[in-house]
Amino acid sequence: MTTVKLLTDAEASPEARAVFDDIRKTRKSDFVNNAWRAQANHPAMLKRNWEHAKATMAPGTLDAVTKEMIYLTVSIMNNCEYCIHSHSFFARQKGMTEEQYGEMLSVIGLATDGNRMMTAMQVPPDDKFKVG
Amino acid sequence: MTTVKLLTDAEASPEARAVFDDIRKTRKSDFVNNAWRAQANHPAMLKRNWEHAKATMAPGTLDAVTKEMIYLTVSIMNNCEYCIHSHSFFARQKGMTEEQYGEMLSVIGLATDGNRMMTAMQVPPDDKFKVG
Amino acid sequence: MTTVKLLTDAEASPEARAVFDDIRKTRKSDFVNNAWRAQANHPAMLKRNWEHAKATMAPGTLDAVTKEMIYLTVSIMNNCEYCIHSHSFFARQKGMTEEQYGEMLSVIGLATDGNRMMTAMQVPPDDKFKVG
Amino acid sequence: MTTVKLLTDAEASPEARAVFDDIRKTRKSDFVNNAWRAQANHPAMLKRNWEHAKATMAPGTLDAVTKEMIYLTVSIMNNCEYCIHSHSFFARQKGMTEEQYGEMLSVIGLATDGNRMMTAMQVPPDDKFKVG
Amino acid sequence: MTTVKLLTDAEASPEARAVFDDIRKTRKSDFVNNAWRAQANHPAMLKRNWEHAKATMAPGTLDAVTKEMIYLTVSIMNNCEYCIHSHSFFARQKGMTEEQYGEMLSVIGLATDGNRMMTAMQVPPDDKFKVG
Amino acid sequence: MTTVKLLTDAEASPEARAVFDDIRKTRKSDFVNNAWRAQANHPAMLKRNWEHAKATMAPGTLDAVTKEMIYLTVSIMNNCEYCIHSHSFFARQKGMTEEQYGEMLSVIGLATDGNRMMTAMQVPPDDKFKVG
Repeated sequence: MTTVKLLTDAEASPEARAVFDDIRKTRKSDFVNNAWRAQANHPAMLKRNWEHAKATMAPGTLDAVTKEMIYLTVSIMNNCEYCIHSHSFFARQKGMTEEQYGEMLSVIGLATDGNRMMTAMQVPPDDKFKVG
Repeated sequence: MTTVKLLTDAEASPEARAVFDDIRKTRKSDFVNNAWRAQANHPAMLKRNWEHAKATMAPGTLDAVTKEMIYLTVSIMNNCEYCIHSHSFFARQKGMTEEQYGEMLSVIGLATDGNRMMTAMQVPPDDKFKVG
Repeated sequence: MTTVKLLTDAEASPEARAVFDDIRKTRKSDFVNNAWRAQANHPAMLKRNWEHAKATMAPGTLDAVTKEMIYLTVSIMNNCEYCIHSHSFFARQKGMTEEQYGEMLSVIGLATDGNRMMTAMQVPPDDKFKVG
Repeated sequence: MTTVKLLTDAEASPEARAVFDDIRKTRKSDFVNNAWRAQANHPAMLKRNWEHAKATMAPGTLDAVTKEMIYLTVSIMNNCEYCIHSHSFFARQKGMTEEQYGEMLSVIGLATDGNRMMTAMQVPPDDKFKVG
Repeated sequence: MTTVKLLTDAEASPEARAVFDDIRKTRKSDFVNNAWRAQANHPAMLKRNWEHAKATMAPGTLDAVTKEMIYLTVSIMNNCEYCIHSHSFFARQKGMTEEQYGEMLSVIGLATDGNRMMTAMQVPPDDKFKVG
Repeated sequence: MTTVKLLTDAEASPEARAVFDDIRKTRKSDFVNNAWRAQANHPAMLKRNWEHAKATMAPGTLDAVTKEMIYLTVSIMNNCEYCIHSHSFFARQKGMTEEQYGEMLSVIGLATDGNRMMTAMQVPPDDKFKVG
């Protein structure tokens, strides 16, 4: 149950179909996932978000797997069902091993627990952490 | 302004001081940061959390910098002031460059924006993402 | 799967049924949605929450559609599945267009991304923003 | 205490200074707030985020004040200190009255309370809310 | 730095001052804390919220300390600086011991860690947990 | 739809099965819920998390029901579907009445609303709340 229709290629506007085409070309795959079919209801938003994603997730000084693990971490913290599934899939597709996945989960668990303790006690940052 | 006192070495119990000593030995530094001085009010919690942190943050199939970036990402998502400062510091100390930091921030921004769009539209995961 | 039963009119207590009646009268519709059927397990809470909602969502210096869009924005940020569906419905029913919906989503995406950047860098508010 | 330096005009790179200039020209004001001075450490991110903000916050089918109130609502939900101050300021500057501000806060309070009740009880959306 | 003025008794409207008086009478103390001085800018909201709080926090089938600990837990999860300080104070004032505080923090840490693991893995509820 | 397989006893490793055995012995029940079957994919994490949970949730200066209500409150705030169902079940199993559940929900609603008002207005803690 969605709040918008997931548009098929036939239902999408020409501007949205052009984005679908670029997704297929970039990923070398015919598959266009629901994330983009939902955003196709707002073609300008679809185009902006796809171009932003394509540029941001390309390997840079961080490699593609590390970027996917950071994306997945954010998705877990935001409790985004769709994104947890899609980025668990993409991270594995780009090379995340099950051991790395387990270690990532352990760091997330440690951090979210530690964050709450510091917040609960309202602990002030040490001077040593100051920048510049 | 905290909700507990930050205990000096003199104020800490023997059990808490033993943890302080292990922190110093492990990090090869005399500095014990406020996170542990706050938790020293609850020595059993202090000991458990330090041992958990020491084991979890040690390099494994993920290296120490990647683990710090995941910890920092969680801290940003939880809006934990203390942890954002301490783990920005630790990540840089362990080798995160400013370029990597900028890319990490860009992925976080992309992901948190994308998460909200999927949540807003209640988009269902594609069958292709299924495991097993 | 709920943590309480959704009470039918027959199962609800007289106090809860009186609230159902006021919902019907206020909305000029026989439909009582699940939100109230769940809260009917705690009649005093049901009554308080319905009266609070009725008073707060009535048009004031903000019109009914703007109030619904603010309610929907909160629900998206809290990731409340039920409320995202119900308030997407109510906002459209009260006149939100698909163009307005798309613009609202774009502002939400921009803001949640911008919020994370400011939080990540712990940027202090400018003096110019001071009140009074 | 920030995790990056807030760059003055003199410290900013030419690419960042060009963005500062566009901010001044767009807003018809010499004031460049800290949000942009922090992001100037990552000029490409600065440029992308400013252009995104400029396009998204311009009046469309939603007027400028409504967009500011949605931005402010997101910022309150994300607990972003900087953004709460800056967008309370911008919303008032663009015409939000104190009465509208009070009504917006009341809707936020109602919604966040209602969201938690629905989440606590895991209430399923009514069929009536289905789209398409 | 606030987004509204904290009103003194002299600055508050008669309706707001009447609420201040009831706070003093109910608590048998001359002290009116900032939470109410901020809300005094919106007298109708102040009155509603004070009466809601007074009724909800009174001992019922849950005693006053347990209610304060639940309020404090919510405040920690929402990362509300003001509320963490005020309800740590009120919980102790009503009898929460330091040992109970430590145990509460440990449960919060355990739960928030466990929550993230279940969310990360998208684990479905067991049939055994079904109600009714 | 999960991101890992839920392991049966036959599929679990000997280390994971030993944890399953301890869960059965501790709870005096043959039932091992999905939370542990998911974590069995990472046996070291499973073992650590189970032992942490067993120690933390045992009655101390807080009784078992109060601990379950705090766990449930955290789960509601984190919007963890699995944990809301499992800990609503466990809290009732350990003695939480429907009246207590209703009062707990009312405190959660009050607190999350109050938290947002304080955050929205950025109200500073009163000096009176200072510790030590």
